[in-house]
Amino acid sequence: MAEVHSVRRARLRERCAASGAAAALVTRPANLRYLTGGAPVGGALLVGPGEQDTLVHLRPPPDGDQAPDDLRDVVLPSSDGDAAVAAADLAMTLRADGLAVEENHLTVARHRALRSVADGLRLTDLGGAVEQLRLIKDEHEIASLRIAAEISDQALGELLESILVGRTERHLALELERRLVDHGADGPAFATCVGTGPHSGAPRHAPTDRRVEEGDFLTVRLGACYHGYRCEVGRTFVIGTAPAAWQIELYDLVFAAQRAGREALAPGVACRDVDRATRQPLTVAGHTEALAPWTGHGVGLEIDEDPQLSPGAMGKLDACVPVTVEPGVHLPGRGGVRIDDTLVVRPAADGGPELLTITTKELLAL
Amino acid sequence: MAEVHSVRRARLRERCAASGAAAALVTRPANLRYLTGGAPVGGALLVGPGEQDTLVHLRPPPDGDQAPDDLRDVVLPSSDGDAAVAAADLAMTLRADGLAVEENHLTVARHRALRSVADGLRLTDLGGAVEQLRLIKDEHEIASLRIAAEISDQALGELLESILVGRTERHLALELERRLVDHGADGPAFATCVGTGPHSGAPRHAPTDRRVEEGDFLTVRLGACYHGYRCEVGRTFVIGTAPAAWQIELYDLVFAAQRAGREALAPGVACRDVDRATRQPLTVAGHTEALAPWTGHGVGLEIDEDPQLSPGAMGKLDACVPVTVEPGVHLPGRGGVRIDDTLVVRPAADGGPELLTITTKELLAL
Repeated sequence: MAEVHSVRRARLRERCAASGAAAALVTRPANLRYLTGGAPVGGALLVGPGEQDTLVHLRPPPDGDQAPDDLRDVVLPSSDGDAAVAAADLAMTLRADGLAVEENHLTVARHRALRSVADGLRLTDLGGAVEQLRLIKDEHEIASLRIAAEISDQALGELLESILVGRTERHLALELERRLVDHGADGPAFATCVGTGPHSGAPRHAPTDRRVEEGDFLTVRLGACYHGYRCEVGRTFVIGTAPAAWQIELYDLVFAAQRAGREALAPGVACRDVDRATRQPLTVAGHTEALAPWTGHGVGLEIDEDPQLSPGAMGKLDACVPVTVEPGVHLPGRGGVRIDDTLVVRPAADGGPELLTITTKELLAL
Repeated sequence: MAEVHSVRRARLRERCAASGAAAALVTRPANLRYLTGGAPVGGALLVGPGEQDTLVHLRPPPDGDQAPDDLRDVVLPSSDGDAAVAAADLAMTLRADGLAVEENHLTVARHRALRSVADGLRLTDLGGAVEQLRLIKDEHEIASLRIAAEISDQALGELLESILVGRTERHLALELERRLVDHGADGPAFATCVGTGPHSGAPRHAPTDRRVEEGDFLTVRLGACYHGYRCEVGRTFVIGTAPAAWQIELYDLVFAAQRAGREALAPGVACRDVDRATRQPLTVAGHTEALAPWTGHGVGLEIDEDPQLSPGAMGKLDACVPVTVEPGVHLPGRGGVRIDDTLVVRPAADGGPELLTITTKELLAL
């Protein structure tokens, strides 16, 4: 494991050198984890200058936590310091003339503190370089995502076998999160969304005390975090024996949109084109105002990471990039449908996109 | 409820006027909640200019969420915008000449985006003004904290009645978090810490798969979040029938330190003096290097808020400020003791500090 983190830091070092920065300061927890295997609270990683990297901790690492041989651990001497400030100070001591920092993570106040201690050190923007490195997952990462997806499917499957009518959204969400952990998750990947009746189909519905009723649409979106890797799955069900005609029609529409998005995934395809493929059936049916700003996003050490599948997205997909495809339609006062899968982009020659979340997408009446 | 949020916004408006800012932009979620009662993901609150405040949402609020009459709700027109940028744009439209922003929350990147859209608007720092307002809690807030503390005590109490030997730290933490929710918590206030044997007494021990053994110290720290308000309680137990002499001695020492800290709490007392009272018994006994940078902190909408009880703290306590007192000693390889209470500062005439977390602090052998 030490080797994979060293390799990642070496790649970051190369990128920084190519853009003229002698060293880089990483503070975002997911990026710290990606580059070192750990994410000490409040820690900061100094990559370079030169070949030596340093992880600055706020307090001593717990007993037994051993740093990889090629990563130096330093504990802040000052009891109320900022590890980023200490790392910048170290960079100056090591005669770096420039330091690339995460301007999309450091607050204005912290950046000012860095500038005041690192007088003479030219601060530039790391510009999402680590997020770029994180885009394409290796097979170990994908294996963790596969397990996270299995756990999510298991938790969801168990819920479907239980009585739902009369239970609150909040209670169902809690039950799902317990089952995620029972099945081996570190914890939920994000706060589980459960929406029933008029709440169904909303993009991010925080569970309330509304109870599931006969005839409702029930939308559930959940995900497991496994070894730090997070995925998501979302499904919509009908409660009772026979869905209404409007429910079948809306479900078929969202299903078609989601399928179109999944089928558009391939290496080399523009992210905005996948988004367009997903949106098109919904727009054609007149549902423009109900759409979210994006129809999918990358997953990994964060539940919401690059790339974004949206109309304004600039990049293209690569093989081994995991993304969600998650369109939906929400009709205020009535509810709606949302269908969400996590898939890994794969070449057509390898069978096309690998679907990680395999719970059936057939409309189930529960 | 609308009235209390209006009053808080009016107080913020007064502070801004006093420091010369025509308007303020609030983005930190706990501060949004304090000032509006809600905390829409990615939302931003524009206080002023003048008497009208505006809450900018990234997407339409869920059905049934009604804005108080005196707070204008605006939904971003642009599907991939930043609510803070939209709020700054609105401030300019409303002819504010200056805008105070949260430099300890906005990233460098977001602040730059604000500057580029709000050309001509002088950006200053809100400087923790909302955190200042949040320091002294009203009786409704304290009532929520009391309930959060009761829930925490209940969950802890139930754990003490169960078999502990052979169970993993992770399993115990999970069980505690489930019981918090069973007893009515929104959720845990923070990630529950459980440390046994050599892990006991560490300041922030993330639970591992180590199993509880006879003779271990077992340290538990947990807290409930209730209606947004978070408190914490921490206790140390001995597993088995008879604590060892070193365990009794260490426990008595930390108990004495924690009691000294609790007894030092009073309106008008300097925060650093409470910290010193807590630290002194530990320092006298030679445990300096084992100490955390602070021995307590405020609680409220965030589990870790102003004031800080530390050697460098500058302020004084007031009545109705809730704080923790949580010293500990951790001996690497052996373990240790940590005792943590949440209390509300009260005048001596009213009986002194109000202890919210009432689980016994007697050393229990379980």
